[in-house]
Amino acid sequence: MLLFSVMNSFAQKEDSIQIRKIADDILENGKAYDNLRVLCKTVGGRVAGSPQMQKAEAWGVKMLQQSGADKVWLQECKVPHWVRGDKEEVYFTVAGKKTALDVLALGNSVGNGPKGVTAQVILINNFDELEQRKDEIKGKIVFYNYKFNNKFVKTFQAYGDASRYRGQGPSRAAKYGAVGVIVRSMTHAADNNPHTGGMNYDTNYAKIPAVAIGLKDAEKLAAALEKNKSLTVFLKSNAKMLPDETGHNVIGELIGSEFPDEIITIGGHLDSWDPAEGAHDDGAGCVHSIEVLRVLKAIGYKPKRTIRIVLFANEENGLRGGSKYAEEAKAKGEKHYFALESDAGGFTPRGFGFSMKPEQLAKVQQWADLFKPYGVFELTAGGGGADIGPLNRTFGTPLAGLSPDSQRYFDIHHARSDVFEAVNKRELELGAINMAALVYLIDKYGL
Amino acid sequence: MLLFSVMNSFAQKEDSIQIRKIADDILENGKAYDNLRVLCKTVGGRVAGSPQMQKAEAWGVKMLQQSGADKVWLQECKVPHWVRGDKEEVYFTVAGKKTALDVLALGNSVGNGPKGVTAQVILINNFDELEQRKDEIKGKIVFYNYKFNNKFVKTFQAYGDASRYRGQGPSRAAKYGAVGVIVRSMTHAADNNPHTGGMNYDTNYAKIPAVAIGLKDAEKLAAALEKNKSLTVFLKSNAKMLPDETGHNVIGELIGSEFPDEIITIGGHLDSWDPAEGAHDDGAGCVHSIEVLRVLKAIGYKPKRTIRIVLFANEENGLRGGSKYAEEAKAKGEKHYFALESDAGGFTPRGFGFSMKPEQLAKVQQWADLFKPYGVFELTAGGGGADIGPLNRTFGTPLAGLSPDSQRYFDIHHARSDVFEAVNKRELELGAINMAALVYLIDKYGL
Repeated sequence: MLLFSVMNSFAQKEDSIQIRKIADDILENGKAYDNLRVLCKTVGGRVAGSPQMQKAEAWGVKMLQQSGADKVWLQECKVPHWVRGDKEEVYFTVAGKKTALDVLALGNSVGNGPKGVTAQVILINNFDELEQRKDEIKGKIVFYNYKFNNKFVKTFQAYGDASRYRGQGPSRAAKYGAVGVIVRSMTHAADNNPHTGGMNYDTNYAKIPAVAIGLKDAEKLAAALEKNKSLTVFLKSNAKMLPDETGHNVIGELIGSEFPDEIITIGGHLDSWDPAEGAHDDGAGCVHSIEVLRVLKAIGYKPKRTIRIVLFANEENGLRGGSKYAEEAKAKGEKHYFALESDAGGFTPRGFGFSMKPEQLAKVQQWADLFKPYGVFELTAGGGGADIGPLNRTFGTPLAGLSPDSQRYFDIHHARSDVFEAVNKRELELGAINMAALVYLIDKYGL
Repeated sequence: MLLFSVMNSFAQKEDSIQIRKIADDILENGKAYDNLRVLCKTVGGRVAGSPQMQKAEAWGVKMLQQSGADKVWLQECKVPHWVRGDKEEVYFTVAGKKTALDVLALGNSVGNGPKGVTAQVILINNFDELEQRKDEIKGKIVFYNYKFNNKFVKTFQAYGDASRYRGQGPSRAAKYGAVGVIVRSMTHAADNNPHTGGMNYDTNYAKIPAVAIGLKDAEKLAAALEKNKSLTVFLKSNAKMLPDETGHNVIGELIGSEFPDEIITIGGHLDSWDPAEGAHDDGAGCVHSIEVLRVLKAIGYKPKRTIRIVLFANEENGLRGGSKYAEEAKAKGEKHYFALESDAGGFTPRGFGFSMKPEQLAKVQQWADLFKPYGVFELTAGGGGADIGPLNRTFGTPLAGLSPDSQRYFDIHHARSDVFEAVNKRELELGAINMAALVYLIDKYGL
């Protein structure tokens, strides 16, 4: 017992030195921030199927090659191809004065252009109210004004709560005959930027256009309705779904020295919504992942297992990249030992969430003191990432997800403000440091 | 033991409910962010002795009254009155092309206007080099190019390391006959904003002008010197120290119901440097402190001890407010039970640092689980604040300081970029929640 404890303390000392090397290299020579700048400023928004998707893939290949991967390749997959088309338009007119509202069509939604529709608006606070007032919906535009709940300290809980209105709201309104939907943005930002995001049609009902509206304009519309219950709104969207395109997961790896067949996957998703640069969502996750490979190579660490970086295609509106990756892994009989995703922004890291067996989590939690100097204090059950979820469902692969501080995330999520300038260099780097440390420990000691 | 444990668990349940009430009220009805907007946008920068200092004092009185203080008053103290004067100017000329550098005179420094000085520049990397090259200094402008150390994860350590060059650099150069000093800014910001801050002259040597330079311009100057070792620079500063002015600590309190004589002080400092709005430094600490009073009143908590909010005068270049507060407390025979300061920004909170007896800290650490839901995981030894330091030195009062995440702090510290827009509403609010929780627990259970 004593011997074990001494050995353990010796190992932690060695690991703490190794992790310090990782940190020093990233804080002094890190490439994540510059890589992100290139992605954001030369590619920008990159919806699945768009020409920017192809530019982003080329960027990914180059970054992985430059970072010292033993091997880099593209894994083909079909992706949906949704396009926004010309700028969407929503306005109302009171006493001859036109008030334009700042909106963005929801991802996957259909348009109704070029003529649009003018219809009465009905403000619905939540799905219970929708059911109670289902007889009043026909021929109207439903305005879901469900509030993002400030009281959730972890903002992803508020998002989980409110995003139902974006995902299911349009079809639930169409069921009762609505002709369009306006959804209050899922944010507590103080600005008026609309926040888009994916929605899904229930094929039992008509596909109606759906847009997100910024918070100030949501208040403006609610106030106008308060004064005039029969207010009409003009809504025009030019969005449409085109035939599937060919996209790719961009993959690079360091081949393991001892167990090359055991794969550790580290990734983020390469696609983003179109209104901004997808800096936090999920450019940050892509450059985090690439940086893990770069730094392990830079400090001369020879991984026992194969460290594979995957920049996944099409997380936002289809998850085709993540699905394809697990599918092909199964077909090839690959062994997926562990997977880590960064898809919650490039803010200062606070922890990791884990989906793994309790005894595996207990092992990880023994390393807690090694992370604290780099700001990670929460190693908790529950977590992973959308793109690596299929690995877990296919193989039972243990998963982890990086948890950055979430307070600023929904200020910029899926909005115009998700730009490079919203990312802080050191916060981004600390994310990569903690990810590399976790990968190093799991590679070295196993799970 | 079991009974104690059951009682303890019962108490923690009750406390967790009470802290949840604090959090809900601040997240839903908080005033800190709006109060900060008013301070930043209607007062702006507020150097001790300036007309803006008086406006800020009037703002503080009004805020404390509106927040429900039983009593609000001003405590007079003399403050230094340093003025920047007309814009400082630094440039060099190479082959007829003039390159202006972005600089800010250091606080408390003297000027040399209106003619300025043209002199050869000597680049000095650190004090060791200064001593080695002391015979080369005479008649020159010393350019301290000491780098902010990226490798310190907690950025205040890098600041502690580098700020010697600002504080002592001018007189150490004057000792060897320098005629001016240019100091590389204490920041790892990617922009070029110069960061000012206080310096102190050693009265044994001549007072020479001193300015801070932004990082890009520091690199530019270093590169020009590399090419031309005898490069001259023109330096003009119009700064000067005027006679002392009358300033005030702004104080408001809730009178204790059980031990009104035992005072818990909570504060930040009201003064700031002039180039920006003093949003994080230390508008945030002021509105944090006011919010603690507001929320305790709002949830109907009747403190046992007197909760006193102090917006301290003149932290930046004299500490006259903090000194006066402790002095008068001593003269009046007050009992200072505990003091808490917020002077490290309005970023997402990570912990508190404590200067108190080990057994007191151990008691506080028993409450650790009550803070975790609000993001505070570090309750560690060492910490407080400049303004409450004199209370500790006078009475041995136990101290605590809020520790927000420090990654972004030195991007904006004492620079043009320390504006309201750099503060996130929820991050600011979480700081106030944790401060109110700590005050509630210490008031209720004692130390």
